[in-house]
Amino acid sequence: MTSGVDFGVEKELTLVEERIQESIHSQEPLLTDIARYVIQAGGKRIRPLVAVLANKAVGGKNLDRVVEIAAALELIHSATLVHDDINDDGGFRRGRTAAYRKFGLQNALVAGDFLFVKAFAIGGRFEPEVVELTAAVCTGLAEAEIVQKRHIGDLSTTRDQYLEIIRRKTAMPISAGARLGAMFGGGTPEEVEALTVYGTNLGLAFQIVDDILDVAGDPRVLGKPVGTDLKEGNMTLLVLHALNDGSDVRGHLSRILQQPARSEADIAQGLALIRDSGAVDRARVDAEHFGFLAIAALDPVRPGPGKDALARLVDFVVRRNA
Amino acid sequence: MTSGVDFGVEKELTLVEERIQESIHSQEPLLTDIARYVIQAGGKRIRPLVAVLANKAVGGKNLDRVVEIAAALELIHSATLVHDDINDDGGFRRGRTAAYRKFGLQNALVAGDFLFVKAFAIGGRFEPEVVELTAAVCTGLAEAEIVQKRHIGDLSTTRDQYLEIIRRKTAMPISAGARLGAMFGGGTPEEVEALTVYGTNLGLAFQIVDDILDVAGDPRVLGKPVGTDLKEGNMTLLVLHALNDGSDVRGHLSRILQQPARSEADIAQGLALIRDSGAVDRARVDAEHFGFLAIAALDPVRPGPGKDALARLVDFVVRRNA
Repeated sequence: MTSGVDFGVEKELTLVEERIQESIHSQEPLLTDIARYVIQAGGKRIRPLVAVLANKAVGGKNLDRVVEIAAALELIHSATLVHDDINDDGGFRRGRTAAYRKFGLQNALVAGDFLFVKAFAIGGRFEPEVVELTAAVCTGLAEAEIVQKRHIGDLSTTRDQYLEIIRRKTAMPISAGARLGAMFGGGTPEEVEALTVYGTNLGLAFQIVDDILDVAGDPRVLGKPVGTDLKEGNMTLLVLHALNDGSDVRGHLSRILQQPARSEADIAQGLALIRDSGAVDRARVDAEHFGFLAIAALDPVRPGPGKDALARLVDFVVRRNA
Repeated sequence: MTSGVDFGVEKELTLVEERIQESIHSQEPLLTDIARYVIQAGGKRIRPLVAVLANKAVGGKNLDRVVEIAAALELIHSATLVHDDINDDGGFRRGRTAAYRKFGLQNALVAGDFLFVKAFAIGGRFEPEVVELTAAVCTGLAEAEIVQKRHIGDLSTTRDQYLEIIRRKTAMPISAGARLGAMFGGGTPEEVEALTVYGTNLGLAFQIVDDILDVAGDPRVLGKPVGTDLKEGNMTLLVLHALNDGSDVRGHLSRILQQPARSEADIAQGLALIRDSGAVDRARVDAEHFGFLAIAALDPVRPGPGKDALARLVDFVVRRNA
């Protein structure tokens, strides 16, 4: 888990937390309880962290607007987590029982809607450009879910198609936070563009590492079981690498992926096949590549502790084990 | 189904339809298909109709803003329909198979989110007062779902609790349309308040008639089976009336409501009990009461064809059989 202390923005992240808590207050305690359950489970707060660091890097003085948008982005993220869990039938999330299993599908579904609404209630107060970007982020999230699902078990999925899915699923929300943080901080147009590119590449690296951890991570450290992508039949970068490894891995893995559902034994066998194929190391190279692009993108940003922290964040994201 | 022709706003409602169709375009054809499926199934377009009529009643000349907000309100309504169907396990909606059964739960869930996002992308362009009202409508919708579910099978539910649920579930969105239509049309403060109250009472009448039709309507005319509220155990006004009818209906109906689930035979028996109790006629009196309050609320609104149409709409809503 990231920490504001490590990156010099503990105060800013505390303000974001307070704004989130304030916004999920409801006349219906159950809605607040579900929202709080999802949000307090922790998560890495990567979206708020990037937004406040980008703001700081360009010399932003007034925190009001970046705190608001950081809270909105985390609320959107939480909303999609609740709904994705329903979709994925994921029993655990961040080491806790998924909200829909604890509170029931109906209540979780409504709580996800509630979190979306609260995000938009914040985002809707901004100028049209900000509203449009926030809406584009959300549209991208919905589209990514659909495309990812369409590619389930599709052996012809390309690396570019995978990257386009994770761009919309993970990189756009992070990039939007970086862009808006820089805009609100009064960054120059070059800095705003640079931080947008930084966010995109950091987001791609972040998601690739997520996919790696779902194959090669330690369930005790992750707080959740591994193999959930394989269970769903998601065509992650690791699967693509393993399929193209040139050996008989392709045949075995294809058979597992093209079944309508996968048993625990299938998943264990599939994970072993992917691990043995060298796909993990190749995916690490990919994550490092996007991490490198993220750091390179920082070039036009003025020097200072904010910029340094953004560079450290890349290292953290690429090296994390949870 | 309502028709713009009957109320002299055919052109305005066509513009709203065009705005809705435009807004649901997505790079992912499946999302657009699901959204279009839900929206084109028709529905009564009561929210857009009330918004454009309120705008017309106060002498609104420029349609741009009312068309935008009318489209947003219908998109929100469509989003909740998709998600509510998942919640209610409602196999049919508006005479068609529910979206989640046709396209799958996962796709329908995401399409509902997509419709919410598109609504907010429109609503977010307005001034803070409008954004806040739109967000309050959506928050109310989520809260109403939770409260309604909490009251399932709860024999101590009061009439006031029922009215508070349907106020948030149905009356607030309609009232918001009336209020914003009047504001955008340049209505006086008195007219804006009057039309807000009109919308609330019209919405209460509308929902009570919905509840009546689910007991006493003709499935062929409705295009969906009756008894869905009873199946869910919802404490509608008709159930409350039947429980309080003083005879042995209470005992029989209580037994049916307090089961964890209801069979087809339970539903048929429950519907017969409610019908025989006189609850339908008493609920009609309630609907007419709120219809009367809606018409009375129109008093401060300037005379003209818009005001006349709003009065006719009350009659239509109270007398409709589908």
